[in-house]
Parts: sequence; structure tokens; C-alpha cells
Amino acid sequence: MRETIRNFIESSRFEWGITAVIVLNAIVLGMETVPSVVRDYGGLLALLDSASIAIFVVEIALKLFVYRLKFFTNGWNVFDLIIVSVALIPASQQFSVLRALRILRALRLISVVPSMRKVIVGLFKAIPSIGTVIVMLLLLFYISAVMATKLFGAAFPDWFGNLGLSLYSLFQIMTLESWSMGIVRPVMEVYPYAWVFFVPFILLTSFIVLNLFIGVIVNAMAEATEDDAHGEREEILTELRRLRADIAELKK
Amino acid sequence: MRETIRNFIESSRFEWGITAVIVLNAIVLGMETVPSVVRDYGGLLALLDSASIAIFVVEIALKLFVYRLKFFTNGWNVFDLIIVSVALIPASQQFSVLRALRILRALRLISVVPSMRKVIVGLFKAIPSIGTVIVMLLLLFYISAVMATKLFGAAFPDWFGNLGLSLYSLFQIMTLESWSMGIVRPVMEVYPYAWVFFVPFILLTSFIVLNLFIGVIVNAMAEATEDDAHGEREEILTELRRLRADIAELKK
Amino acid sequence: MRETIRNFIESSRFEWGITAVIVLNAIVLGMETVPSVVRDYGGLLALLDSASIAIFVVEIALKLFVYRLKFFTNGWNVFDLIIVSVALIPASQQFSVLRALRILRALRLISVVPSMRKVIVGLFKAIPSIGTVIVMLLLLFYISAVMATKLFGAAFPDWFGNLGLSLYSLFQIMTLESWSMGIVRPVMEVYPYAWVFFVPFILLTSFIVLNLFIGVIVNAMAEATEDDAHGEREEILTELRRLRADIAELKK
Amino acid sequence: MRETIRNFIESSRFEWGITAVIVLNAIVLGMETVPSVVRDYGGLLALLDSASIAIFVVEIALKLFVYRLKFFTNGWNVFDLIIVSVALIPASQQFSVLRALRILRALRLISVVPSMRKVIVGLFKAIPSIGTVIVMLLLLFYISAVMATKLFGAAFPDWFGNLGLSLYSLFQIMTLESWSMGIVRPVMEVYPYAWVFFVPFILLTSFIVLNLFIGVIVNAMAEATEDDAHGEREEILTELRRLRADIAELKK
Repeated sequence: MRETIRNFIESSRFEWGITAVIVLNAIVLGMETVPSVVRDYGGLLALLDSASIAIFVVEIALKLFVYRLKFFTNGWNVFDLIIVSVALIPASQQFSVLRALRILRALRLISVVPSMRKVIVGLFKAIPSIGTVIVMLLLLFYISAVMATKLFGAAFPDWFGNLGLSLYSLFQIMTLESWSMGIVRPVMEVYPYAWVFFVPFILLTSFIVLNLFIGVIVNAMAEATEDDAHGEREEILTELRRLRADIAELKK
Repeated sequence: MRETIRNFIESSRFEWGITAVIVLNAIVLGMETVPSVVRDYGGLLALLDSASIAIFVVEIALKLFVYRLKFFTNGWNVFDLIIVSVALIPASQQFSVLRALRILRALRLISVVPSMRKVIVGLFKAIPSIGTVIVMLLLLFYISAVMATKLFGAAFPDWFGNLGLSLYSLFQIMTLESWSMGIVRPVMEVYPYAWVFFVPFILLTSFIVLNLFIGVIVNAMAEATEDDAHGEREEILTELRRLRADIAELKK
Repeated sequence: MRETIRNFIESSRFEWGITAVIVLNAIVLGMETVPSVVRDYGGLLALLDSASIAIFVVEIALKLFVYRLKFFTNGWNVFDLIIVSVALIPASQQFSVLRALRILRALRLISVVPSMRKVIVGLFKAIPSIGTVIVMLLLLFYISAVMATKLFGAAFPDWFGNLGLSLYSLFQIMTLESWSMGIVRPVMEVYPYAWVFFVPFILLTSFIVLNLFIGVIVNAMAEATEDDAHGEREEILTELRRLRADIAELKK
Repeated sequence: MRETIRNFIESSRFEWGITAVIVLNAIVLGMETVPSVVRDYGGLLALLDSASIAIFVVEIALKLFVYRLKFFTNGWNVFDLIIVSVALIPASQQFSVLRALRILRALRLISVVPSMRKVIVGLFKAIPSIGTVIVMLLLLFYISAVMATKLFGAAFPDWFGNLGLSLYSLFQIMTLESWSMGIVRPVMEVYPYAWVFFVPFILLTSFIVLNLFIGVIVNAMAEATEDDAHGEREEILTELRRLRADIAELKK
């Protein structure tokens, strides 16, 4: 019987069905944001939502039954389990934040569609090569936030009042949003040399983000362009070795 | 007679003529935005515009006559047909939007100039390799818009009042325009933890757009750099095979 | 005597001297922006400036004497001639704009330092490969400006009142500066569907600029990475041909 | 004894210890930004900070004792020495700026962690290839600042009142922050043709920054993709030379 269920849940028909339920559920949750639709069809939407959750729960239960502990060795299964679990909490509570999180179920589309899964796996593969640069960016943010809090915290409590506010403001400055007119020019009216802190910060973060970018792009490029060329060079080497063998034969 | 017309419309003289009419028509429509010119030469401009449309209609009629149903197998013909048809509607109506659309006829320059056509074809060729990433971006936007509408819609109806407004606001945030000073800081005054939603949204969209970018650039690069190298490696292999044949002869 | 002067103006000592005068002149013109320096040393600065111009004029006169009409075949000479000529006009007039243009003489540094000259030449070399894309960008700007003027000109004369204002506003929108909070949201209060015009405009310009970028980067990359590899593959082919010759000898 | 100390300070146990002290010190300095923590544990934090500095001083003293003048041949040692020296000044003074600089000690993490050191070394290696472009960017900034000060300084003293203010404003415009709505539109109300100065400035800086970017990325790419390919081509050549030797033997 376990084998029968395994065949069923591994069939492409089952996968398409789950994909359809995910898409339908996403549409239902989207319609819940339209007041007039909720007023007229609120009951139906709630029903469809509950039905979707029920299907997801049954799906995961079947997978747990079939794969037992092996279920947890596949990261995507764990991802599905967490997302569906989160979906179960708001069903029993009224907190608006938790209700809003239900739409995260639409992320299951990523775990179901292979080509999307590949993009995400590619992201995680790129992490080792850019890990150091990310740590350096975090270090720069931490150092800058401590300095900004100590230097400007007293005069500008809304922007640099504590470490958290400074980190947020520095993130805004890194994205270049209103960094000068909104933040640095007002700060410079109190501390005329504030640009000595902010301009290098912008240059450094730009440089580090450029490094991140290059790390990711060089990886992608090297993989894409070198595979064919490498194959062809291998073929040339094989051909050369055959030639040597032929000539060795000739010598005899 | 059909053959005579085919030769005529496929001649480079005819193509240059049409290009000239397109450019002239674009200039005429541009001059219609200058009130003083319209006051003095309004009649002439309208005449030139009508003449251009007449020429386009005759051109497409000739092509339809020559190619019959094959006309529709060429995407650029369909593109021209739609653009000229749109041009015919405003001629009979007074809606300002439809009148403004007449300048779209200048887009016909793309379908007439081969090098521009190549850029557009290149764009469509790149789509398969970046299709998945685009779908992921749309999915992220949809999920985020549903969440933003539910979380912030009640307090900020202008920005997140419904799905459409949320999508527009999130697009603005993705472009980093006034995302913090204009939107997120005011939102954080009501919901202090709003950054938990917006900062990851910015990081995720940046990452996905970076992926889009890499998809397009890797494609372009691989095509550009590998063609010559591939040819040279092919030549090396050919040379090697000739050598083997020579040695095989020697053995005999 | 013409040969003696040629040797003199082609000596590295002469080139270094001119470079020094350019740098000194740039510093003098920079100091003219400091009121206190002008008050105390205004006469000296004016004297040094006149001396620099005199040296430049003599330099170009010598070059004209030595190279005659060949002087004009070198683009950099023409560039120097124009820049120094511009410098001569403000000396005789009082218009502040012309006086401000005198600092453009510092651009002569580019025509004197070989490595900078190379960067500029590289720029002009890249133009053919990106020319089509630039024309498409201009076409898109023209079409969009005509449409924006017709659609929004009446209601927003400051931003879209005529073709020139529309082009400027669209350039601002392309750079994403205040595009939404500053321009599109106010426009949408009058024309709720204005986003149908602006959002595609942003996406299209981003795509075209990306294409420009890729055009430049692919060129640079192909040149940089392929030169060595190409040389090595050439070496492999040469070696192979020698082998064939050896074997052909063996056959005899 | 000097040999014993050398073994000790070059042991990985010692390096890990110093890394731990750096991290601990960074956390302590971060906690000093939280008023409630300073009130309750201020004494402890000051003690831990003093202890960290003491350890750093001893570490550098030991290195000086072991390596003598060779200590200064390693750039990272000099970097550490400067950072720790800076840390010693604020301990004896009350200036808030100097106190804020103490967090810079966390930068020592870079000199201690090899992979971070590599990123920084990579940065310095990239400088020669982009040096010319950086000089051109500085030249463009200087020329533009002198012009802006002369043209707009009188009417807009806050933005272009002197060279320093102009440089800052131009840096802001280069980052595209509020360049139009915040600066150029107000300037155009006084000088309608100001866009003739600012729009080319934006295009030129974008082009130069793109060149910088390409310089860095092409370097990184060429290094990353060509190493393996180069190795394989070398192998092919070696193989070919062996073949020639074999054939030469055959001839005899």
C-alpha cells in the first residue's frame, strides 16, 4: 500500500494537481483583499481556503507516511512543512499579521516548479563564494552604526538614536534614497564635517556591493561559457593521445 | 502584375521611401505639440499627417495583395498593421488619448530598420532564459502586494488601499524611489516593525533583478566571446583528424 | 629650422612642460573661486592665467608651423585648438558664462596624457556597436515626449508643457529621481491611469540602458579575455601544421 | 626566547584568541551605545574595553620584539599598529569624535581573517587598471565644481557657494539623489539653461563610473575564467611537443 501511495504522489498528475491548488489558493487569498468580493462571496472564499489547506495537510501527511524520516532530508519538504504549518496558526487565531502571512503559501509554487527550484538552488550555491564579502558588508554596517549612534545619536534621535535606527538609516543611505537632501544635509547643519563619515560610507558600500555583484556574475559566467569550451579541449586532448598511441605503434 | 508589385515593394527604393514617410510623419506629429506652429500651419500639418496615413494604408494593402495570408506569418507585418489601424481610429474620433497614440506610428521605424529589428529579436530570444526569473518576480510582487494590502491597507489607503495601489507602491519601492523617507518611515510611525516587511522585499527584488540581469548578460557574452574560439578549436580538431589519417596511411 | 622646432615640440621635456602648465592653470582657475584669495592675489592669478594662455597659443602656433595642414588630421590637435580658442574669447569679454568655460582648458590634460587618450578612444570605438541602441533610446524619448506633452501638457505645464520640458522630465524619470512621489503620483491624481504610460516607459528605458551597458561590457570583455587565448590556440595550430609537414616527410 | 615567542604568536591558537578579543571588543563597544546597559554595567564595559586594548598593545609589542624592523614591511602590521594607536588616544581624552573612532578597532578583523585580507588585496590589485579612469573622474569633478561655483555660486550659496560645497553637491548629483527635484529644477528657475551643464555631467559621470565598473569586472572575470582554460591549452601544447619528439625519433 505504501508503494501505491508513493507512485501516486510521485506521478506528474499529482504534482500538477498540487500546483493548481497552490495557484487557486493564491487567487482566493488575493480576492480576499477586495472588500466587495468578501462581502458577497466571503463564505465561498473561506471555504476554498480551508479546502486548500486541507489538501496541503493531506499531501504532507501522505509524504510523511511514504518517506518517513527521509522526508526531512529534502530541504524542499521542510520548506513546505513550515509554510503549511504557518498557515495552520492563523486559521485558529485573529491576529491580522498571522492572517496576512497565509499568502506565503503561494511560495510553495517555487518548491513545486523545478525551474524555479533551480534558481533558488543557484542562489545558495553562490553563497560560499560571496560569504566573505557579505560578512565584510555586515562588519562595515556594524562599525558605521556604532559610530553614527555615538556621533549623531544625541542630535538626531529619530535617525541615529540607537543601533537599530542607525542600521536602518545606513541601509537607506546605502540604497542612496534621500541620503543627501533627506539626511546628510540636515546633519551637516549641526556637524559640518559629517560628510567625512557619510561620503566614504557610500563609496565603501558601493565597492562592497560591486564585489558581491561580481562574485555572483563571475560564477554564473564561468559556468555558462566554459562548459562547452572545456568539452572541446578535452576532445582535442583525447585525439592527441590517440595519435601518440598510433605513433608508438609505428615505432615498433 | 502581382509579381511587378512584389518587386516594387521589395525594392530598397520603396523601403527608403517608407522610412522617409515615417520620419516625416514623426516630425509632423512632434510639431503639433507646438501651439504657435499649429495656429499658423495647422492645416498643412493635418494634411501631411493624412497623407502619411494614406501612404501607410496603401503600403499595407499592397503587401496584403502580394503576400495574401503569408502576410500574417511575419510578425513585423502584424506589428505594422496594428500600429496603422490604431492610427485610423483617432482620425475619426476626438478623444485626446487616441490622438496622442498616433505618435506610436514612429515605432514603425523599428520594423523598417534591420539593425533595430535585430535588437528587438534579441530581446525576445533572451526571454526563454529569463522567463522563470520573471515569473518569480511577478510571484514575489503578488505575494507582497496581498500582504501589504492586508497589513497596511487600512492605515495607508492611498498607498496600499487595494491590490493595484499596493503593486504600484511596491514597484516604486523596488526602484528605490523615496522608499524610506516617502513610504517606509511614515508607515513605521504606525507599525514600528514595518521594516521587517520592506527591507527583505528590497533585498529580494534586488537579488531577482540581478538574476535577470545576469541571465541577459551571460547569454550575450557567451554568444559574443565563444563564436571565434569555438571556430578555432574546430579547426584544431580537423587538423588533428587529418594527422591521424596521415599516420594511418603510414602504418599501411 | 622647422626640423629643430619639430624635435623640440616632440621632446618629452616639452610635453611635461605643457602638462605642468595645464595643471598650474587649472589650480589658478580653481583659486579664482575663493573670494579671499582673489582679493589678496587677484592680480597674480590673472597674470598666471594670461601667461598660461600665452604659452598655449605659442604651443599651437609652433605645431601649426611644423605640421602645416597635417595639424588638422590629428583629432587631438583640433580638440586643443578649440579649447584654447574658447579660452581666448572670455579674455576679451565680461560674460560670466564664457569666463566659467575657461576651466575647460583643464580638459587638455586628456589630450596630453596617453592613458587618458586611450580611454576616450575606447569610448569612440564602442559607439558603432551601441549606435543602434542609442538611436532606439532617442526614438523612445521622442515618442514618449510627444505623447506626454499631448496627454499631460495642459494639466502639468511645468513638467510637460512642451517637447523640451517633457524630454527633461522623462530624463529625470529615467534616472528614477522622484519619479513616483514627485511626478507620477501627482499626475495620477488628475489622470488615474497615468501609470499605464509611465511604468512601461521606466521598464523600456531600463531595458534599453541595460542593452547599452551589455554592448559596452561585452566588447571590453571579449577584447580582454580572448587575446591571450587566441594567441595560444594559434600556437597550437602552428605546432600541428609542423607535425603534418614532418609526417609528410616521413611518407616520402 | 625570541624563537619561543615567535612560535607562540604564529600559532593558530594565538590567532584565534586575538580574533575572539576583537569580536568581544566590538560587542562591548556596541553595547556602550545602549544607555540602560551603560547605566547598569558601565564599569564592566569600560574594564573589558581596557583589557582588550591591553591585549592588543601586548600583542603588537610581542610582534615588534620578534620581527624588529621586519614588522613594518608587512602592511597589515602597520594597519594594526595605526588602529590600536588611535584607540590609545581617546583613552586619555574626552572628545566624542575620538571616542567614536574606537570602534574602528573592529576593522582588525579584516587583518586577522585571511579570506577578508584577500578581498582587500584584490581591491588594491585592481587599482592600477582603473587608476586612469579614477583620475579622469576626479578631473571631471574638479572642472565641473569650478564651473558650478562660478555659474551658480552667487544665486545658490548653500549648494555651490565654494569649491567644497560644489564638490559635495556634484557628488550628490552623481548618485542621482534628488538631482532634479531637489537641485536642478530650482536652479533652472533662475538659470533656464542650467540643464546644459547638469544633464551632460550626469551622462559623463555615468559613463566614467561604467568604465570603472567594467575595469574591475573584466579583471575579475579574466582571472576567474581563463586560469583553467589556460592550463588545458598548456597541456595540449605539451602533448603536441611530445608528439614531435616521437616523430623526430621515427625519422632517424
